[in-house]
Amino acid sequence: MLMEFTAEQIAGLLNGDVEGNPEVVVNKLSKIEEGEPQSLSFLANLAYEARLYTTDASIVIVNKDLKLNNPIKDTCTLIRVDDAYSSFTKLLEAYDQSKPVKIGIEKQSYIAESTTVGNDIYVGAFAYISDNAVIGNNVKIYPQTFIGDNVEIGDNTIIFSGVKIYHECVIGKNCILHAGAVIGSDGFGFAPNDNNSYDKIPQIGNVIIEDDVEIGPNNCIDRATMGSTIIKRGVKTDNLVHIAHNVVVGENTVLAGQTGISGSSKIGKNCMTGGQVGITGHVTIGDNVKIAGQSGVSKSIKDNQVLQGSPAFSYNDYMRSYASFKNLPSLVNRINELEKLIK
Amino acid sequence: MLMEFTAEQIAGLLNGDVEGNPEVVVNKLSKIEEGEPQSLSFLANLAYEARLYTTDASIVIVNKDLKLNNPIKDTCTLIRVDDAYSSFTKLLEAYDQSKPVKIGIEKQSYIAESTTVGNDIYVGAFAYISDNAVIGNNVKIYPQTFIGDNVEIGDNTIIFSGVKIYHECVIGKNCILHAGAVIGSDGFGFAPNDNNSYDKIPQIGNVIIEDDVEIGPNNCIDRATMGSTIIKRGVKTDNLVHIAHNVVVGENTVLAGQTGISGSSKIGKNCMTGGQVGITGHVTIGDNVKIAGQSGVSKSIKDNQVLQGSPAFSYNDYMRSYASFKNLPSLVNRINELEKLIK
Amino acid sequence: MLMEFTAEQIAGLLNGDVEGNPEVVVNKLSKIEEGEPQSLSFLANLAYEARLYTTDASIVIVNKDLKLNNPIKDTCTLIRVDDAYSSFTKLLEAYDQSKPVKIGIEKQSYIAESTTVGNDIYVGAFAYISDNAVIGNNVKIYPQTFIGDNVEIGDNTIIFSGVKIYHECVIGKNCILHAGAVIGSDGFGFAPNDNNSYDKIPQIGNVIIEDDVEIGPNNCIDRATMGSTIIKRGVKTDNLVHIAHNVVVGENTVLAGQTGISGSSKIGKNCMTGGQVGITGHVTIGDNVKIAGQSGVSKSIKDNQVLQGSPAFSYNDYMRSYASFKNLPSLVNRINELEKLIK
Repeated sequence: MLMEFTAEQIAGLLNGDVEGNPEVVVNKLSKIEEGEPQSLSFLANLAYEARLYTTDASIVIVNKDLKLNNPIKDTCTLIRVDDAYSSFTKLLEAYDQSKPVKIGIEKQSYIAESTTVGNDIYVGAFAYISDNAVIGNNVKIYPQTFIGDNVEIGDNTIIFSGVKIYHECVIGKNCILHAGAVIGSDGFGFAPNDNNSYDKIPQIGNVIIEDDVEIGPNNCIDRATMGSTIIKRGVKTDNLVHIAHNVVVGENTVLAGQTGISGSSKIGKNCMTGGQVGITGHVTIGDNVKIAGQSGVSKSIKDNQVLQGSPAFSYNDYMRSYASFKNLPSLVNRINELEKLIK
Repeated sequence: MLMEFTAEQIAGLLNGDVEGNPEVVVNKLSKIEEGEPQSLSFLANLAYEARLYTTDASIVIVNKDLKLNNPIKDTCTLIRVDDAYSSFTKLLEAYDQSKPVKIGIEKQSYIAESTTVGNDIYVGAFAYISDNAVIGNNVKIYPQTFIGDNVEIGDNTIIFSGVKIYHECVIGKNCILHAGAVIGSDGFGFAPNDNNSYDKIPQIGNVIIEDDVEIGPNNCIDRATMGSTIIKRGVKTDNLVHIAHNVVVGENTVLAGQTGISGSSKIGKNCMTGGQVGITGHVTIGDNVKIAGQSGVSKSIKDNQVLQGSPAFSYNDYMRSYASFKNLPSLVNRINELEKLIK
Repeated sequence: MLMEFTAEQIAGLLNGDVEGNPEVVVNKLSKIEEGEPQSLSFLANLAYEARLYTTDASIVIVNKDLKLNNPIKDTCTLIRVDDAYSSFTKLLEAYDQSKPVKIGIEKQSYIAESTTVGNDIYVGAFAYISDNAVIGNNVKIYPQTFIGDNVEIGDNTIIFSGVKIYHECVIGKNCILHAGAVIGSDGFGFAPNDNNSYDKIPQIGNVIIEDDVEIGPNNCIDRATMGSTIIKRGVKTDNLVHIAHNVVVGENTVLAGQTGISGSSKIGKNCMTGGQVGITGHVTIGDNVKIAGQSGVSKSIKDNQVLQGSPAFSYNDYMRSYASFKNLPSLVNRINELEKLIK
């Protein structure tokens, strides 16, 4: 919980102006539509302005230039700042950082003697760190995590409970790996043999996750057959994302929930996928590409495209075709009619 | 295993009538098509009546009013009851409850001193219960489970192996969380910044799972940015379901395997999704809505709709359009023909 | 790492001929396009022949009958063999097997006294093996794995970290189960009751995984309601695959990432699904069926079909219809035009 703060104190922190009761006290943060007494909220998007006049929040942070078109409640005090959204985010971060920081090595963990560990790390009970791992400073390894042989983890990275990192993988600095993510499992590589069954192709590569990456819970990122599967700096993945062997995901690309990328495909920088997008193997996606939810990309794509469909093509063209698809039965009727008229 | 029972004993239990050998003995349950000597089965759906005449099950439970249209095998004894299906389910439950009940706290577990625990709980080895958690009576916590700070778990709830529950989340009574489910990981919230990369938006809310909920294995349910992601009473989710931050899933709604729901969407009561359904963010789905497998819902939906497609619309209309879609090449030929005739 | 080998030594191993410097030394394997000094690579597919003339690999394995259409670099030595691909795979396997083998039972594990274990097994710390489990010879059980009551695991099987196997399930010989896979969780079976909610149908069956199966990370394979969910010999599943209760997957069938199969469906032998394929419940898929990525199969399918679409039909027909779908807006214009001309 936040300690208690007055409107005046918060205005001071944010360099803002109080409009209302400077003595009113808050002890938690809320969305404006869920505001209640003693909570602090914000209004940034004017589409939701109506909520300002009905909220029970005790304090609402708003932009300096906001014009009130209705009276606000007596119980509501405004703090006017240059940018309500970023001011509120600053408070969110302060709140988040007020939580106690885990530190120390809990007794029931297992750390191989050959492992090298940095300063100020946390290793929870039942975490397992294998031979020759290298753990940076200030790394937090939660309970029941598995760190394989020769794995490297950069400074300040957080590995939540139950993450499994296979041998040889490399995790950068300032990363967050959420619970249950699997990094470096074998790529899905099999060669058909003469018995109508498959021989396993050994997967001797690894996974490299660069700095500032956040990996969602229960993601699966496979090691390369040879070389590396690479998740570049600043990538963010949502829940249950599947990334196959030898894939490269470019800087600052964002993959929404349940996205799947097949083997050896290269995704550019600053791309975005919607939920449940699938990308086939051995294709190259350019930079700044946006792919609508549930689309399936079956070929290489140039920079700056926006796509939809399975197989995917231009978003606008897809939506036009889909509008006609909805009308197909009436279209068929019109063709029937034309045929009758002509005969 | 069941102990051995005679047809007469089971008929007594179910208040039914024996037709055949009252002394015949069974020791297991089976489906009628997989019936074998000493197994007990049932026939409720008359579409499968033919199986009754060929089954090797020693006993079959049938409805009182069933008319036999063929002779049954000599090895098969019938027990006639009011409702064969519910009688059989009663036996299934009795069988299920005959398994030994786990109880006690295994030595190799970790339970923070500040945790409050109820009576008759089970905590398996390598389970980790963090500070200030509150665990109800008769809760079963399997090995390698992680329970974060301040988590609350209601009476009679079962948490299977490897479940990870982040701090502050609240789990109701009589819930079942299957192996590998992740509850309360950070919502997927990032704000673009001036470096073409993203700043993380702290996720300070939680997840609330109400009573009588069953969560499938390897599900991921994210905590709210602020406030709560809420899974209401009686919800059932299948394998690998993804539920994003600030989602609300209404009472008794059923989500099939690999369904994904994006941030802030509200799903009504008694809805059903097929497998691999996707629902976009910030929409409201009414009560009793049914969504066919692989459909993608991109807008708010009223009560009682049945939907298919990506984007989804009325199931019947989709199926009509899809029938025409299959015929599109011949439709194109007909248009070609018409154009020729006219010119 | 590989020890160092000369071209002459490797040629001897593979029964090949050196063309270039027999003394050149390599110490790692690489793809030809990622070749660097001291690495060994191969060229099997002539579509990539151009890479042979630019690679920095010190040694490249090629077929005996390969004709050089350009000069190769001075730094590159060839080894000619009968089959470059299989020779290279042989080296990959040798490399893979050179890793140290885990053996022994780590102290911080839990093994119930009633468990039977074979010779030369590995049990990592924080692994939990329940009552009456039977573990074969040479089985490797990684840390934080859960093995339920009465589970059987065949010889030489590898269970990676965090796998959860519920009670009564049976795993064959020579299997690999990747991290986080859940085997034998309850099938998704509920019966609607009079309160508009659901009663759980007890799931008293199990999962049987036959020999030579590889299960991908974070897969979920549900136990049967009664009887068994069966994964037959030689099946391979990719990441995040969902297999519901009472499904049977036939021999040597390959399921790509995020495939989902609903309850009671039977899949034939030697089938292949693309990524994110969905198969509805209670259908039968023949042998040698191929299903394109993101397709949804809604009915039973005969042998040797190739399918696409949601619902899926013949791949070729789908692609023809989809080509017309892309042109639908112009088709509509042509119909408008025809109508004008006629009126």
